[in-house]
Amino acid sequence: MNIVLLEPEDVKETLWVIHQSRQYQHIIQHLKLNVGDRLKVGIRNETRYLVEIKKIDFDKIWIEPIQQEKVPAKLPVTLIVALPRPKVLRRIVMDSVTLGVDKLILIHSYRVDKSYWQTPFLKQLDHYVTLGLEQAGDVVVPEIELYPRFKPFVEDILPQMIDKDRPAYLAHPYAETAMPYAIDHPCSIIIGPEGGFIPYEVDLLTKNGCQAYHLGNRILRTETAISYLLGRLSV
Amino acid sequence: MNIVLLEPEDVKETLWVIHQSRQYQHIIQHLKLNVGDRLKVGIRNETRYLVEIKKIDFDKIWIEPIQQEKVPAKLPVTLIVALPRPKVLRRIVMDSVTLGVDKLILIHSYRVDKSYWQTPFLKQLDHYVTLGLEQAGDVVVPEIELYPRFKPFVEDILPQMIDKDRPAYLAHPYAETAMPYAIDHPCSIIIGPEGGFIPYEVDLLTKNGCQAYHLGNRILRTETAISYLLGRLSV
Repeated sequence: MNIVLLEPEDVKETLWVIHQSRQYQHIIQHLKLNVGDRLKVGIRNETRYLVEIKKIDFDKIWIEPIQQEKVPAKLPVTLIVALPRPKVLRRIVMDSVTLGVDKLILIHSYRVDKSYWQTPFLKQLDHYVTLGLEQAGDVVVPEIELYPRFKPFVEDILPQMIDKDRPAYLAHPYAETAMPYAIDHPCSIIIGPEGGFIPYEVDLLTKNGCQAYHLGNRILRTETAISYLLGRLSV
Repeated sequence: MNIVLLEPEDVKETLWVIHQSRQYQHIIQHLKLNVGDRLKVGIRNETRYLVEIKKIDFDKIWIEPIQQEKVPAKLPVTLIVALPRPKVLRRIVMDSVTLGVDKLILIHSYRVDKSYWQTPFLKQLDHYVTLGLEQAGDVVVPEIELYPRFKPFVEDILPQMIDKDRPAYLAHPYAETAMPYAIDHPCSIIIGPEGGFIPYEVDLLTKNGCQAYHLGNRILRTETAISYLLGRLSV
């Protein structure tokens, strides 16, 4: 937690309030802060502040803003990922929010177990988004979209997201060319499930405008591939 | 598990044997393979083969090599990381092995809790190395070294690892220049603990030959930073 993310309703009075027990405990027990100490907070979808602690109650911390701070810019990247198993889903939501993707799209694919679409984590994405923002020091919630059917997504939705100024790069182990570096224009990147997209899916993706590139000759876990790829593409 | 990693003593007879229960169960229960099916195996520190299943016992699988396969090359990178908390340690060992670093060095730092050096995971690194190799399809165990004292490492060991053809890059949030891309020469990369290196440590590292570069204006978790950085540096 590199900032404490507050809701707009927590900052309506002169003194702002931190009342979520997860955040309260982090500040009191882990950071061991006291009245007079300063910390960084963000207001969801607004901005960031340096604040000072004015008063500590048994379940609330009252703070006062000192100065506004800069929010890191998002990457102009839409990340499209085949829905992973629930445990991995939590990490990829946190990580892609931390890394600053503008939009996250979770799609179905042949090798995605249908039961993954029933996981309760899909109803708790907000929580993992919050953790990702607090790690990065960001406050802006990215869009997250779910497409539980592969073909309608690839044929109807994806082509609208692609044009010559906004390519879509498919990470594909059998592509001939390596993924580019340091992209200075918006793009979409597409990452398959454990075991990869099946040939029919790769075919449909490339027919609908995706460019396939490899990521080297090692097979990476989904969450490793995401940060590997974003490190490579980020300017 | 993208290959099954065997020990040299498992491949001494005409038929080779898979007898570790983790691997046995993966092949029988997860992959659901039968006699006549093929799979990829590696022999630790030797090479990789495509093999065919000849016989399945209740606790062993007998296989025969069909053809030798290529082992992915290592990255000419020494990764130096401040020892993270035990849960993260497992993931960074697995990930850095999967990503192909030549050598992994774990060091102490002011913000590393001393208790981390007592974790039983440090005695089980071989297991996480094996998991990382099996994920990547690699067979070569990288060197792993531990330096539980920061200053002697930085002053006595690190300078011997640095010269003009083999720089050391320190990932540092307050550096002025961004980390380079696509390095085509050997290098060391250094990643601090949660909360970062303290100014004294950054100073000692740069005095002893490290070049400090930033990774953008977002604060990444250690494991995210490692794959982000290797994606950026890999050719």
